[in-house]
Amino acid sequence: MFLTRTEYDRGVNTFSPEGRLFQVEYAIEAIKLGSTAIGLKTKEGVVLAVEKRITSPLLEPSSVEKIMEIDDHIGCAMSGLITDARTLVEHARVETQNHRFSYGEPMTVESTTQALCDLALRFGEGDEESMSRPFGVSLLIAGHDENGPSLYYTDPSGTFWQCNAKAIGSGSEGADSSLQEQFNKDLTLQEAETIALSILKQVMEEKVTPNNVDIARVAPAYHLYTPFEVEAVISRL
Amino acid sequence: MFLTRTEYDRGVNTFSPEGRLFQVEYAIEAIKLGSTAIGLKTKEGVVLAVEKRITSPLLEPSSVEKIMEIDDHIGCAMSGLITDARTLVEHARVETQNHRFSYGEPMTVESTTQALCDLALRFGEGDEESMSRPFGVSLLIAGHDENGPSLYYTDPSGTFWQCNAKAIGSGSEGADSSLQEQFNKDLTLQEAETIALSILKQVMEEKVTPNNVDIARVAPAYHLYTPFEVEAVISRL
Amino acid sequence: MFLTRTEYDRGVNTFSPEGRLFQVEYAIEAIKLGSTAIGLKTKEGVVLAVEKRITSPLLEPSSVEKIMEIDDHIGCAMSGLITDARTLVEHARVETQNHRFSYGEPMTVESTTQALCDLALRFGEGDEESMSRPFGVSLLIAGHDENGPSLYYTDPSGTFWQCNAKAIGSGSEGADSSLQEQFNKDLTLQEAETIALSILKQVMEEKVTPNNVDIARVAPAYHLYTPFEVEAVISRL
Amino acid sequence: MFLTRTEYDRGVNTFSPEGRLFQVEYAIEAIKLGSTAIGLKTKEGVVLAVEKRITSPLLEPSSVEKIMEIDDHIGCAMSGLITDARTLVEHARVETQNHRFSYGEPMTVESTTQALCDLALRFGEGDEESMSRPFGVSLLIAGHDENGPSLYYTDPSGTFWQCNAKAIGSGSEGADSSLQEQFNKDLTLQEAETIALSILKQVMEEKVTPNNVDIARVAPAYHLYTPFEVEAVISRL
Amino acid sequence: MFLTRTEYDRGVNTFSPEGRLFQVEYAIEAIKLGSTAIGLKTKEGVVLAVEKRITSPLLEPSSVEKIMEIDDHIGCAMSGLITDARTLVEHARVETQNHRFSYGEPMTVESTTQALCDLALRFGEGDEESMSRPFGVSLLIAGHDENGPSLYYTDPSGTFWQCNAKAIGSGSEGADSSLQEQFNKDLTLQEAETIALSILKQVMEEKVTPNNVDIARVAPAYHLYTPFEVEAVISRL
Amino acid sequence: MFLTRTEYDRGVNTFSPEGRLFQVEYAIEAIKLGSTAIGLKTKEGVVLAVEKRITSPLLEPSSVEKIMEIDDHIGCAMSGLITDARTLVEHARVETQNHRFSYGEPMTVESTTQALCDLALRFGEGDEESMSRPFGVSLLIAGHDENGPSLYYTDPSGTFWQCNAKAIGSGSEGADSSLQEQFNKDLTLQEAETIALSILKQVMEEKVTPNNVDIARVAPAYHLYTPFEVEAVISRL
Amino acid sequence: MFLTRTEYDRGVNTFSPEGRLFQVEYAIEAIKLGSTAIGLKTKEGVVLAVEKRITSPLLEPSSVEKIMEIDDHIGCAMSGLITDARTLVEHARVETQNHRFSYGEPMTVESTTQALCDLALRFGEGDEESMSRPFGVSLLIAGHDENGPSLYYTDPSGTFWQCNAKAIGSGSEGADSSLQEQFNKDLTLQEAETIALSILKQVMEEKVTPNNVDIARVAPAYHLYTPFEVEAVISRL
Repeated sequence: MFLTRTEYDRGVNTFSPEGRLFQVEYAIEAIKLGSTAIGLKTKEGVVLAVEKRITSPLLEPSSVEKIMEIDDHIGCAMSGLITDARTLVEHARVETQNHRFSYGEPMTVESTTQALCDLALRFGEGDEESMSRPFGVSLLIAGHDENGPSLYYTDPSGTFWQCNAKAIGSGSEGADSSLQEQFNKDLTLQEAETIALSILKQVMEEKVTPNNVDIARVAPAYHLYTPFEVEAVISRL
Repeated sequence: MFLTRTEYDRGVNTFSPEGRLFQVEYAIEAIKLGSTAIGLKTKEGVVLAVEKRITSPLLEPSSVEKIMEIDDHIGCAMSGLITDARTLVEHARVETQNHRFSYGEPMTVESTTQALCDLALRFGEGDEESMSRPFGVSLLIAGHDENGPSLYYTDPSGTFWQCNAKAIGSGSEGADSSLQEQFNKDLTLQEAETIALSILKQVMEEKVTPNNVDIARVAPAYHLYTPFEVEAVISRL
Repeated sequence: MFLTRTEYDRGVNTFSPEGRLFQVEYAIEAIKLGSTAIGLKTKEGVVLAVEKRITSPLLEPSSVEKIMEIDDHIGCAMSGLITDARTLVEHARVETQNHRFSYGEPMTVESTTQALCDLALRFGEGDEESMSRPFGVSLLIAGHDENGPSLYYTDPSGTFWQCNAKAIGSGSEGADSSLQEQFNKDLTLQEAETIALSILKQVMEEKVTPNNVDIARVAPAYHLYTPFEVEAVISRL
Repeated sequence: MFLTRTEYDRGVNTFSPEGRLFQVEYAIEAIKLGSTAIGLKTKEGVVLAVEKRITSPLLEPSSVEKIMEIDDHIGCAMSGLITDARTLVEHARVETQNHRFSYGEPMTVESTTQALCDLALRFGEGDEESMSRPFGVSLLIAGHDENGPSLYYTDPSGTFWQCNAKAIGSGSEGADSSLQEQFNKDLTLQEAETIALSILKQVMEEKVTPNNVDIARVAPAYHLYTPFEVEAVISRL
Repeated sequence: MFLTRTEYDRGVNTFSPEGRLFQVEYAIEAIKLGSTAIGLKTKEGVVLAVEKRITSPLLEPSSVEKIMEIDDHIGCAMSGLITDARTLVEHARVETQNHRFSYGEPMTVESTTQALCDLALRFGEGDEESMSRPFGVSLLIAGHDENGPSLYYTDPSGTFWQCNAKAIGSGSEGADSSLQEQFNKDLTLQEAETIALSILKQVMEEKVTPNNVDIARVAPAYHLYTPFEVEAVISRL
Repeated sequence: MFLTRTEYDRGVNTFSPEGRLFQVEYAIEAIKLGSTAIGLKTKEGVVLAVEKRITSPLLEPSSVEKIMEIDDHIGCAMSGLITDARTLVEHARVETQNHRFSYGEPMTVESTTQALCDLALRFGEGDEESMSRPFGVSLLIAGHDENGPSLYYTDPSGTFWQCNAKAIGSGSEGADSSLQEQFNKDLTLQEAETIALSILKQVMEEKVTPNNVDIARVAPAYHLYTPFEVEAVISRL
Repeated sequence: MFLTRTEYDRGVNTFSPEGRLFQVEYAIEAIKLGSTAIGLKTKEGVVLAVEKRITSPLLEPSSVEKIMEIDDHIGCAMSGLITDARTLVEHARVETQNHRFSYGEPMTVESTTQALCDLALRFGEGDEESMSRPFGVSLLIAGHDENGPSLYYTDPSGTFWQCNAKAIGSGSEGADSSLQEQFNKDLTLQEAETIALSILKQVMEEKVTPNNVDIARVAPAYHLYTPFEVEAVISRL
């Protein structure tokens, strides 16, 4: 019965009789409204590709940032509420800088992901940095450290998984199927670029152009592709 | 069903089952009630033009400020709740002054916009500077820094986009269409003034006079037009 | 539907689906129940006139203060909840005294108005000085500074406007119409006194006497009229 | 519609759609249940007279205190919740003692009244001294300072008025009418005693005795009448 | 209408439209469920007598404390929630000890009662010592100081009265009537003991024994009667 | 009417119209779901016996602790929520250790019980040690101090009584009847062991074994019986 | 009646009329949705085995951690919300490290379990480390200390039990039955590995592979099996 259900789902951090946390599930729902993002790990490094929704021709495409750098060796693609993502990324940037300063070496990708998820988990607790609701964003975190390249997927509950390839956002279901078919461990970085963009193309409703997609790699350093580099990948499709 | 919807929309910072944040959407609604403001970026600089609603002939038109200076090189036009805008602008002014003092150079337009949006995002968290509800205001932030002229558009969720041209407020839908038709990258500042005011004229219900519009430019310094300068633009229509 | 509406209007600082802040609107409603106050700006200075409702012949008319001094060069007339007005005025007095002490010169009228509105805006935030509801009072702030005479009008939302003439309170609608007809920029202070009192007389239900009206001027210093001075103005009607 | 109304009246500090503060109005209602108290100002000083409801013959009449001393030169009569009155009086006592200590002179009656009302206004704000509901008490504050005798009337909203004569409590309506008829500025203190007690007698349901009324004067010092002195006034009726 | 009423009575510290504080009234109701206690003041001292409800023959009667010592010269009998009474008594003990230490003399009975009621009044305010609901207990406070013997009666609202004789608890109505008939100011302490116990006997449902009543006197020191002393009073009935 | 009742019973610390505190009553209900525990006081010392519900044969019986040591001379048996009991016992342990350290002597059994109940009473007050709901546990506290052996019974309201014998938990009603029949003041400790266990046997649904009961004595030191000692008592039944 | 029930079950820490804490029961329900985990204690050490649900072939199996090390001598398997488990494990790691540092020796397994459960119990209290809801996770804590090997089972209420063998998660009912049949105290560690995995195999819906199970032992040190070691156990089934 729907009315009964609503009594649980507004308590930001309350279990329903079946042991569910509805606010977290609804935040996950928010991501299904977001633009699609795709990550692929290869031996050479990780590729991230995102759809950019340019709602008005008056917007500067370059200001719609859906891929952001966390540290030299870590970048992330996002889907969901962009302002929430910015808060998490800013938090991760401070953590990685502090780590470099304290230990004289880069933070591992897993520790960075853990730090970011710790903040996501703490919603509803009222301390200074945490939010009063779950963060409405999923991230694909691409990095390269002493263990080689790695790709993490985080959801609004603060849970994270290591992946070989993963899609998030409104087109993630179809994109994940395509990734399972096309992914293998011996892909080159260039092949991964092509696969990522071709899958993105399938789930997007408009023609792919350097204006409505962004691509980045961490191999081993973070690099956001210029429009020319994106054009080059498009031309290979 | 409407009754069910209202259960989510009063929680200032709670997701609905579809992953929506209603209080933010309602604040965005507040802006649709506001006066229209228009921004246009040219190579020479940025032009801002706003409608001033003088509800009573007894009011001093000059005291209805819809365009405000943030720093020498940054100004902003607003639509929505004026007192909320003043709080954001005051915050941005402190940030830019602190930056000048700490670094000996002006803050970039993007950093200023980010700082202002950080405050907007933090509503409902109960700390000292943040508000208990979303800020009910949209801003067009015009600036000029080492990257040349730039125009940013912010909404109550704390999200911001870089634009070439943008309208906000009650007449924004029609104004945006006109801007798309008339904007091109090679406009002179004077042409931009004329376009901005002519579009504003279309969406206003009364005759345009120096009393019911304000115009400003950042090119590269912020300058609010005197009634004589406004008159001059009007005469070019 | 009325029941749905009430769900928004009790949240002290929550947007309704149409982007409205009901508690602020209801506080503005509280002022419509208040006594009428009128302000007029002339080149010589500003005149304030208020109706005093003496609910019982046992009350001392002089203790019903509806016009108060903020600083030597600033006074204000009020309509609405008197205790709320006292809190705002007391706050403004501390601000102007601090300013004199820190800078060795009087605070401008606009800065004083801004400081007072900052406090009004901060309701519902739970810090020490702010209130848990909007301030249920409107003020007409009359002052004289380096820019000459000025008159400000503030409402419970913390918004303020500069005016040439303005009426607040239960009779404000009719009074504003009369002001628009009779106001011109070349009025002498004495003419302004006569106009203010004659308009007040129209909206009051009883005969005007030195007991049921107060008049003050800021020209350039604040001065509250004695019963004899009020009598003199009455005799000119 | 009553049900709708109740949605506003429990929020301790929330405006209703008509701009009313119901909790304050209900607290004022609480006073209408209280015992009657009367104050009269003469040139010689102020007289306070109160009805004491001795609910059980086992109670000590002298322990039902409805008139209390605040300082040598200030006393007050109360109607409503006695414990709330005690808190306000205790607060005022501390304020007057601090004032004497800091400035070496007695606090004026108006300043004392203002300090007491400041506390009353701050209900619902959660700081240390304030209450979570309005104070359910009205006071008649009688004093004598450099401006001569004065009488103030305060209500639960923290508003105060200076009066020549005033009645509060369940019999206040009838008592106020009688006071208006019988009061004039040239009354002697003794005449005021007689008027106060004769009016009190009219509104009380039982015979007036030294056990069920209290009388005090501030002329210029506070003095609570002994049973013999009360008996003397009764005998003059 | 009952449903409307419940909307006010759960707010721990909220006025109803008639000016009532329901939580305090309900706490007073809690005392009507309590065991009966009786106090009588004589010139020689004060007598307290209480009914002890021994719900199980396995309980130690001496551990059911309904009369407690506050200081050498003050004791109290209680009815209602025993744990609440313990908190109030413990608070009063600390206050009287602090007073002895600071001033080198015992605290007066009235000041002790006031201190205890201050704590009772402060419920719902969230500070360290206060409770989140009214204290569900009434006390009869018997003492002896420089003003001779005195008896105070306190209720959950924090109000107190000085009495010659008073009964509290489930049998208080009948007991108060009997006290009014039998009390006079010239009773000896021994006569007061007999009256108190004979009235208690009337309202108790079982036979009076040293196990189910307690008697104490403050004359001028607090003394709780031994079973033998209680037996002696019983034998005089 | 049940619906009306529920409006009071969820407020953790709110009186109902009849003066009841439902959350405390519901916590007392929680104990009726708990395992049975029995205490008996003799001149030689106190015996505690508890039923241990081993819900799975995979559990270590010794880890199901229903009798715990507080200090050398004090132990307690519990029924209800075990984690709540652990918190209370841990608090009491700290108190008794502090007392030994500060005063060089053991804390009396009554003071220990009082300290433990103070914590139980403070629920809903939000300070550091207290809980947001009543503690869902009853305790039988057995001790031996300068006053000889003693047995206390505490309930979730923070009330405590001294007893000669007492049963708590799901079988307490029948067990209390049996205790009243079989208890007398001249029991030896060994007789008390036998009575306690034989009564426990009656209320348990399974065969009594050293695995599903625990026995302890304080005579004068706390001692938890080994399985062999329990076996010995069982063999005497 | 279901509607009545829901009124209690959303209060995170409120008793229902029958003395139940619904939020804790719902959190326990959350664990029934979790993957199955099994623990077995032998004289040689403790074995933990868990099912890993790899929801997408794109996930790295090794990043789905369901068994984690707490200290050299303690590990734990979990079922329920993984992020909640991480918080508890992180807390336990800090506690064991602090203990090693302060006392120069490892913390016992019981103390570690107690520390972890203390945190679980404190939900809803608003302090820094605690959560606003119960932790939605059960743990099997395997350890080895001066008392030899031990296995603890914790639930969301903060209760813990020592076990010889235990299963948690969606398949726990069937698994517990199998464990009772197959467990005996003389199992070797290798036999325990085989039993654990064969039972896990029964409750899993897919074929057991090194990718979808994890095995660890504490004998006496914590060791997580490599895929080869897991393969070896699988081959013995």
